[in-house]
Amino acid sequence: MPRTVNDPTPQTAALVDALERVRTRAPLVQCVTNAVVMQFTANALLALGASPAMVDIPDEAGAFASGADALLVNLGTPYAEQRDAAGEAVEAACAAGVPWVLDPVAVGMLPVRTPLAVRLVAARPTVVRGNASEVVALAATAGLSDPAAGGRGTDATLSVDEALRAAGALAGHTHGVVAVSGPVDAVTDGDRVVRIDNGNSLLTRVTGGGCALGACVAAFLGATRADQLDPLVATVAAVTAYGVAAEVAAEVATGPGSFAVALIDALHHLDATQLTDRASVVLATASAR
Amino acid sequence: MPRTVNDPTPQTAALVDALERVRTRAPLVQCVTNAVVMQFTANALLALGASPAMVDIPDEAGAFASGADALLVNLGTPYAEQRDAAGEAVEAACAAGVPWVLDPVAVGMLPVRTPLAVRLVAARPTVVRGNASEVVALAATAGLSDPAAGGRGTDATLSVDEALRAAGALAGHTHGVVAVSGPVDAVTDGDRVVRIDNGNSLLTRVTGGGCALGACVAAFLGATRADQLDPLVATVAAVTAYGVAAEVAAEVATGPGSFAVALIDALHHLDATQLTDRASVVLATASAR
Amino acid sequence: MPRTVNDPTPQTAALVDALERVRTRAPLVQCVTNAVVMQFTANALLALGASPAMVDIPDEAGAFASGADALLVNLGTPYAEQRDAAGEAVEAACAAGVPWVLDPVAVGMLPVRTPLAVRLVAARPTVVRGNASEVVALAATAGLSDPAAGGRGTDATLSVDEALRAAGALAGHTHGVVAVSGPVDAVTDGDRVVRIDNGNSLLTRVTGGGCALGACVAAFLGATRADQLDPLVATVAAVTAYGVAAEVAAEVATGPGSFAVALIDALHHLDATQLTDRASVVLATASAR
Repeated sequence: MPRTVNDPTPQTAALVDALERVRTRAPLVQCVTNAVVMQFTANALLALGASPAMVDIPDEAGAFASGADALLVNLGTPYAEQRDAAGEAVEAACAAGVPWVLDPVAVGMLPVRTPLAVRLVAARPTVVRGNASEVVALAATAGLSDPAAGGRGTDATLSVDEALRAAGALAGHTHGVVAVSGPVDAVTDGDRVVRIDNGNSLLTRVTGGGCALGACVAAFLGATRADQLDPLVATVAAVTAYGVAAEVAAEVATGPGSFAVALIDALHHLDATQLTDRASVVLATASAR
Repeated sequence: MPRTVNDPTPQTAALVDALERVRTRAPLVQCVTNAVVMQFTANALLALGASPAMVDIPDEAGAFASGADALLVNLGTPYAEQRDAAGEAVEAACAAGVPWVLDPVAVGMLPVRTPLAVRLVAARPTVVRGNASEVVALAATAGLSDPAAGGRGTDATLSVDEALRAAGALAGHTHGVVAVSGPVDAVTDGDRVVRIDNGNSLLTRVTGGGCALGACVAAFLGATRADQLDPLVATVAAVTAYGVAAEVAAEVATGPGSFAVALIDALHHLDATQLTDRASVVLATASAR
Repeated sequence: MPRTVNDPTPQTAALVDALERVRTRAPLVQCVTNAVVMQFTANALLALGASPAMVDIPDEAGAFASGADALLVNLGTPYAEQRDAAGEAVEAACAAGVPWVLDPVAVGMLPVRTPLAVRLVAARPTVVRGNASEVVALAATAGLSDPAAGGRGTDATLSVDEALRAAGALAGHTHGVVAVSGPVDAVTDGDRVVRIDNGNSLLTRVTGGGCALGACVAAFLGATRADQLDPLVATVAAVTAYGVAAEVAAEVATGPGSFAVALIDALHHLDATQLTDRASVVLATASAR
C-alpha cells in the first residue's frame, strides 16, 4: 500500500482537493451498517456528493462490493444476515482492491461482534474508525496491545496516549490507518500521527454522529483511490471536512435535533473556503508505536 | 380492472378530489419496505393523512394485508424475513383485491432482489414505481423488453423514450400502471402516457425521496379504491401531490437536511389551492407500447 | 416492589428531581425496539441525557441487559432475532433487578407479536406503555379483562374508563405500572390512577411519538432505581417531561416534520422551570380496579 506523500503533513490544499474529488466523482459507497443510523448515514453521503448503497444481505453484498468505490462495515447491530454480508463484502473488496472502513461499534464487551471484529481486522481494513474505548478494546482483543499500556479495555477514562498506543499497534498490524474520534480526533498509520481539532460536542448527542463519519471516510477513500492518494491523507480530509461541517451546523442549531438537520445541510454546502478557513490539522510527533 | 374515466386527461379537479379522499379516509397502508427509509416513509404517510403500518414479518404480513387499504413492497433491503413477508402479503392482497405497489429498488444488478422482483411482477402489481434504470432493467429481466430498444440494462444514460417503451411493456404485462420517476415523471397504463413536471432535484439528494413516493401512491390507491377510481389517475394524483409538496419544501429549505423536514411539513399542509396552482400534468400521445 | 411514597400524588418537585437524576446519571438504556423508530428513539434518549444502546441480537442482548440501567422491549417489528433477543434480555433484566418497559405495539391483531406479548407480560414488566387499544387488547389476550367491560379488543372507540379497567387488571397482574397514552395520559399501578394532561396531538402524526416515550420511561426508571423511587412516580415524571417537551416543540413547529426536530431540541433543553410551569398532573380516584 503506497504511503508516499510529498510532504509529511497533509496541507489544507490536499484536503480541499480530496473534497473536490468526492464532489466530482460521486464515489459509490457500499454500507453494511447498523439499523439505527442507516438513514442518517445515507443522507450524509448524499450531502457530501457520494452515492450510498445499503447493500447488506448475503449473496448480494459480495457481488456488489467488487464494483463499489469503497465499503463501510459498521458492527452496531450485527444481525446474522449482516454478519454474513459483511464477510463476503470484505472478501470481495480485498480481492478487487476496493478500500474499506471498519467501524467496530461497542466492540470488546459484546460476544457476537467482538470475535467478528477481530476476524475482520485480520482482513486488513484500509481504515479502522472508532472512539478511544473501541480502538483500545479492539487492539486488546486482537492481541495487539502493548502490555505496558495496561489494557484497561473499555474504560471511558482512557488517556489519549493510551488510545494512540493502541491505534498505532492496530495500524501496524493492518498496514492501514486508524482514526480515533474524540474531543480532538487523531489519525495514524503507525508512523505518523495527525491531530484534527475540528468538530462539535453535539456530534456525541446525535445517534450516528460517529457512524456517518465512518461512511464519509469511505467516500474520501473511494474518490481518491484512482489517484493513489495516501489513505492517511484521505482519512484526515474526511475527518476534517466532517468536523468543519459540524462546526458550521452548530452555529445555526438550537439543539441536537436541529443540529442533525443542519449537519446534512452543511455537508451539502461545504466548500473550499470553509475548509481552508477552519481546518485545524497538525502533524504530531511520529510516536504512534 | 376498470380503466374507464370520463376524460382521458386527469384534470386537476380529479387530483384534488383524490387528495381529499386520502385526508378523509386515512387509508391503512401496509409497508414492507427497506430499513433505510422506514422512518421517512411512515412520516410521509402520516403527513399526507394516511395510516402507515410497517408489518413486514412472515405470518403477520399476509394476515394484515387482506385488511389493509393498500400495500407497498419495496425491495431496497430484502432481508430473508422481508422476502417471505412480501410474498405472503402480495398473495393476500391479490386475493382480497387490495391494490399494491412494487418498488423494485436497484433491480437488475443484484442476484437476490432481481428474481424476486420478476416473481412479484408476475403477480400483477397495481402500480410499479421506479426510476428509468429500474423500469428498464425490470422489463428486460422479465423478458418484456422490446428487442429494438436495445436492452441496455441499468445504463444511466437511458433516454426517456427507452424508459417509456419498457414501462409500456411492463404495464401491458401487469395490466396495471407504471410510474417512472425522473426530472419529469411519467405514468402509463400501456395505452395512455401522462407526464408530470413537478418536483425538485433535492428529492434525489435525500434517501427515501423516491421510496416514500411509492408509499404515497399506495395511499392514493387505497383511499380511492372504493370509488373504483382509475389507478392511473390515482397514481398521477400521488405523483403530482408529492411533487408539489417537494416544490413548496424546496422554497424554504437551505439544503437536503432541511428539505427532508420541510417536505414532511409540506405534505401535511398541502391543499387544493397549492395543488391546483402548481400541478403540471399533460397527457402525452398514447405511444407507450 | 416498593410502592411507598410519602404523599400519594406525585408532586412537581418529585418530577423535577427525577429529571435531574436522568441528567446527572445518564442511565444506560438498552432498547430492543422496532426498525422504524430506532433513530428517533436513540436521539430522544440522548437529548434527555440518557445513553441509548440498541443491543438487540441473540447472545448479546442478555449479556448486556444485566449491566444496563433499564431495558425497553418494543414489539413494533418483531423479527426473529429481535424476538429471541427480547426473551433473553427480559430474563437477564429480571434476574438482575433491572427495570424494564414493555411497549406492545399493535398487539391483539397480529399472530406473532401477540403471544410474545402475553409471554412477556408473564415476566412482569416494571411498566407497560401503550395506547388504549393496545392496553385493552393485551389485557384481553392475557385473560385479564373484566368480562363486564365487554372486551371489544382493538376498537378505536374505546372509552377511557374501559382502558383504565384493562390497565388496572394488567397492573394487578404484573405488580407493576401501566401507562396509557392518549389525549390525556393515564398511569396506574392498579391502586392509584394519575392523569397527565400534557403533550400535543402532533405526537400522533410523527412515527415513534409513542415509542420514544416508552424509552424515556425506561430512562427515568433506570436513573431512579438506586433511590428506589416508586416506579409510578418515575413513569409519571417521564410522561410529563415528554409531554411538556412536546408542548414546547409544538410552539415552534410548522408541521410534523419540524415538530419531530423541535421535540429533540426541547427534550435537550427541558428544565425545571418548564416542567414546573407546565406540568398538569392529577391523582384521580383510586378506581383502577
